[in-house]
Amino acid sequence: MTIVLGSNRYGKAENRIVRIYRDTPRHEIHDVSVSTALHGDFAAAHLVGDQLHVLPTDTQKQTAYSFAKEKGLLSIESYGIDLATHFVDHIEPVAGARIEIEEFAWERVVVDGAEHNHTWVRRGQEVRTAAISVEGTGPAQQVWVVGGLKDLVILKSTGSEFAGFMQDPYTLLQPTNDRVMATSVTAGWRFMTTDVDWEATYAGIKQILITQFATVHSLALQQTLYRMGEAVLEAYPFIAEIRLSAPNKHHFLYDLSPFNVANNDEVYHAADRPYGLIQATITHDDAPDAGPAWDSYTGLV
Amino acid sequence: MTIVLGSNRYGKAENRIVRIYRDTPRHEIHDVSVSTALHGDFAAAHLVGDQLHVLPTDTQKQTAYSFAKEKGLLSIESYGIDLATHFVDHIEPVAGARIEIEEFAWERVVVDGAEHNHTWVRRGQEVRTAAISVEGTGPAQQVWVVGGLKDLVILKSTGSEFAGFMQDPYTLLQPTNDRVMATSVTAGWRFMTTDVDWEATYAGIKQILITQFATVHSLALQQTLYRMGEAVLEAYPFIAEIRLSAPNKHHFLYDLSPFNVANNDEVYHAADRPYGLIQATITHDDAPDAGPAWDSYTGLV
Amino acid sequence: MTIVLGSNRYGKAENRIVRIYRDTPRHEIHDVSVSTALHGDFAAAHLVGDQLHVLPTDTQKQTAYSFAKEKGLLSIESYGIDLATHFVDHIEPVAGARIEIEEFAWERVVVDGAEHNHTWVRRGQEVRTAAISVEGTGPAQQVWVVGGLKDLVILKSTGSEFAGFMQDPYTLLQPTNDRVMATSVTAGWRFMTTDVDWEATYAGIKQILITQFATVHSLALQQTLYRMGEAVLEAYPFIAEIRLSAPNKHHFLYDLSPFNVANNDEVYHAADRPYGLIQATITHDDAPDAGPAWDSYTGLV
Amino acid sequence: MTIVLGSNRYGKAENRIVRIYRDTPRHEIHDVSVSTALHGDFAAAHLVGDQLHVLPTDTQKQTAYSFAKEKGLLSIESYGIDLATHFVDHIEPVAGARIEIEEFAWERVVVDGAEHNHTWVRRGQEVRTAAISVEGTGPAQQVWVVGGLKDLVILKSTGSEFAGFMQDPYTLLQPTNDRVMATSVTAGWRFMTTDVDWEATYAGIKQILITQFATVHSLALQQTLYRMGEAVLEAYPFIAEIRLSAPNKHHFLYDLSPFNVANNDEVYHAADRPYGLIQATITHDDAPDAGPAWDSYTGLV
Repeated sequence: MTIVLGSNRYGKAENRIVRIYRDTPRHEIHDVSVSTALHGDFAAAHLVGDQLHVLPTDTQKQTAYSFAKEKGLLSIESYGIDLATHFVDHIEPVAGARIEIEEFAWERVVVDGAEHNHTWVRRGQEVRTAAISVEGTGPAQQVWVVGGLKDLVILKSTGSEFAGFMQDPYTLLQPTNDRVMATSVTAGWRFMTTDVDWEATYAGIKQILITQFATVHSLALQQTLYRMGEAVLEAYPFIAEIRLSAPNKHHFLYDLSPFNVANNDEVYHAADRPYGLIQATITHDDAPDAGPAWDSYTGLV
Repeated sequence: MTIVLGSNRYGKAENRIVRIYRDTPRHEIHDVSVSTALHGDFAAAHLVGDQLHVLPTDTQKQTAYSFAKEKGLLSIESYGIDLATHFVDHIEPVAGARIEIEEFAWERVVVDGAEHNHTWVRRGQEVRTAAISVEGTGPAQQVWVVGGLKDLVILKSTGSEFAGFMQDPYTLLQPTNDRVMATSVTAGWRFMTTDVDWEATYAGIKQILITQFATVHSLALQQTLYRMGEAVLEAYPFIAEIRLSAPNKHHFLYDLSPFNVANNDEVYHAADRPYGLIQATITHDDAPDAGPAWDSYTGLV
Repeated sequence: MTIVLGSNRYGKAENRIVRIYRDTPRHEIHDVSVSTALHGDFAAAHLVGDQLHVLPTDTQKQTAYSFAKEKGLLSIESYGIDLATHFVDHIEPVAGARIEIEEFAWERVVVDGAEHNHTWVRRGQEVRTAAISVEGTGPAQQVWVVGGLKDLVILKSTGSEFAGFMQDPYTLLQPTNDRVMATSVTAGWRFMTTDVDWEATYAGIKQILITQFATVHSLALQQTLYRMGEAVLEAYPFIAEIRLSAPNKHHFLYDLSPFNVANNDEVYHAADRPYGLIQATITHDDAPDAGPAWDSYTGLV
Repeated sequence: MTIVLGSNRYGKAENRIVRIYRDTPRHEIHDVSVSTALHGDFAAAHLVGDQLHVLPTDTQKQTAYSFAKEKGLLSIESYGIDLATHFVDHIEPVAGARIEIEEFAWERVVVDGAEHNHTWVRRGQEVRTAAISVEGTGPAQQVWVVGGLKDLVILKSTGSEFAGFMQDPYTLLQPTNDRVMATSVTAGWRFMTTDVDWEATYAGIKQILITQFATVHSLALQQTLYRMGEAVLEAYPFIAEIRLSAPNKHHFLYDLSPFNVANNDEVYHAADRPYGLIQATITHDDAPDAGPAWDSYTGLV
């Protein structure tokens, strides 16, 4: 029985880069958190502490900041591809790179009815995400891109039921035909190509997710999620699959009957924990292999 | 030397109440966190554990939820006045009540070009706040209302300087005539009346704060804050004073010169800590006494 | 009606300083977050953006780090006094300074039965705090020191009641004669002198707070808090007053009766929100004036 | 090209269960957060909203609380096995269950030199974790158990180098032969059996991790992690593999030379972001298949 080094990676997490475009008086802002992770033949560093083939995480940071100017930072997907490809192509011991990016949205303030040139407020709604994996060099090089979002908190005050469910001896829940349904959507969608209008696609997918949540009469959060994902795949044939994670942010109807106050679905307690958590993948049945596309750097390797 | 009970209060913090108005198909939502605090003659509870005059915090919670229906929850200021007055007027041992409220904004989603009737996304920008203090009963009763906001994150990419400052042996900072200025505004404004259009006033003040931040050419965050507050007081004569707290969320220009990359105020590092913190009060010189208006329940009593 | 600048202050918040003492192989560590706030005649900065009398917040930061070596960082109270006095004595426009410090505790790891010389784990229990205010110069100079702690989470599984309380139409709560009582103590104690063994006093007060919580049979959290504070004042006559803030971290007995499972005070749900919040001051009746001792920098000025 | 439902699961996350053992005056406390996730044939719920085979997440919650009494909650690993097995064995549509648990440690307070019977403070150091996956029924049933911890913050003030690393045009970092090394360890270890003394094993592994961190002279965090993992596998042959994730919590030596103050590795700035992030698996070369052992419920399915 031999003890060996298994999978491993390293990098610099959460570089907080803000890129201003200021070539005209109307500036543009891109505000991101970038994490880089490299893997390859780094066994010597682990086994004997030899750093000869280890590109410091500080160097990865410097590169990430410099690329915001050298390559530009307009779409996080293309910036991430540039950065990942650089590490794989130019740093010899690197076999593969993963870049994870969060983008924080700002909206231009309006002054005297006009959008201001160089002032914004944080929009604070959802966070846009991207994860790029590049493996190998030359003709064998493969690139996986996952776009996504998180923290999209959405609520409907009617049009949602939960009834007809399974019963066992621990089942106390009462069925309901009209409830508040709320969630905080995390979604990732995997592209089958990099020839994409990243900005338009992001906006389109977000609108589809919202529209489906609003308009599907929901018999369960599972059903709503499926319809959200299905609509995205129907609209964008170059997306292989979409994965959704949705906490059921419970809003419990508050019992006001002891006070002789009618509560006709009007007053709720918004609970913190516990919460239901529903996760689903909607995919093409012949989707290409996902490879490392979903191997998040925030989990254990 | 005698040990005695000093100031004290108690209540129920962070009741997460969601109120839906659904009298027409176009629902409305109000999503708040309500904290109640009572003070009065509660010495027996402290000194000998006698609860005879202690209205349980659970009862305060029940009241807060029920009032969302009984009194309605349209403006947090008026709801807070209703709740505070109730405790002072109807619970005999209570000499004064303080209600602190945070309101989380939702915006209606747009589906097929039209605002949806019953689906929203959390706007996630600033949190609106209110603090109501009521002291005494009958003709002697006094009411203080402080409106406010927090977490309004705002940034300008030019139009901000910091130069000509004091020097001492620990001063290393270089002056700058063009920098990114960003902050997360916390503000509270004290009303001199309760005869107010709370919704219009909130919207108006927020717009003034944003407009001043955007349009004042800033020589220092102090100057910007003063002008923000001054403009609010000029526009709303029934506001006695405004208090502002603004962290200087530093954006440091990133040095790309080692890589022979020009950085013309384009690439920044957004730092977390430490941060400058500027606080100021802008007030009428003859403002009426603030009483307990600013005695926040989140601090020590 | 004239608009004027009211109270104001500025500084550098959350400097994360780690000080290692390494004069012998047995190192010592002090890990703190330091915030500095200055006030004085800074009207020109607010009114016209003139920085001539403004010591930059960056300079305050440099001073805080340098003083960790120059003056040492053994007790946060004495370090804070050094720093506050420096700003008031040596920076001409400064009338008063406030230093707020949090200290994070580390405990030495044990290897082969012996404490290790230079390795620690974060203890992660309570955070020790100090707030120092210095006003004026020369013989008129006054110094206020408040020691304290926060996040001391403590629980007792019996020895706590809540019964005999006031009833009104909104009261649903049932009395109980045996409950779990848990809280997260925030405490501040104000010294009447600076001639104090800071380390021994901190350890002594923490032990008293814990002992009283454990051993007082509690009829209400109010009563427990009073006894905690009273015991501190009895033990340390140089403490003028102590202020306590204690959320009632509710542990609700879980109803297992639908499953025919007995729950003899054994299974609880630990709730997040809402929570009761009890605050009290225990003081000497002739305590000297508190001055600015309690004017926390985290609130509005 | 057909759109289909891919992998999916659902459950109740973050049930905050506190279990008191009170059969003698010396009580015991177990404080956990339990998440349950089920998978199986739930396609009807997704595709057409049919709940007939869906055991509500509320029922999963009720079961988790009841099992804390019915089965007991002494070791989180065995409690998790009981709960997972229940869902797979007794809920017909369930093909597999995953239970994830966090345990928060309390330590008995000491009063008058003796441990108190029923009062504790939260220890607040690391959080113990467990993840149990059960797949299939009857003789084909398989069980995977991963023990672990997170948030073990550990620091050494000497005995750590980083030098001799790779250089590229973006490399600015200077080598160092004496630095502060600090991290917050997340670890998971996979058992090859369920016949384990869970408590002794947890304590033993934690001690090994700490000892190795303290005593290995570190040439890189990678090397330290490998030695930590290797030592665990050497001591516990029934552990198949251990996975470690360790942020390099940078402590930057503060430059005091402008003030003519010597800083002999004594004053540091503790930085928040960005941070290095090192991840590694140390494994037996013939470890059995990991199956779903590492499929965390907090990520996308």
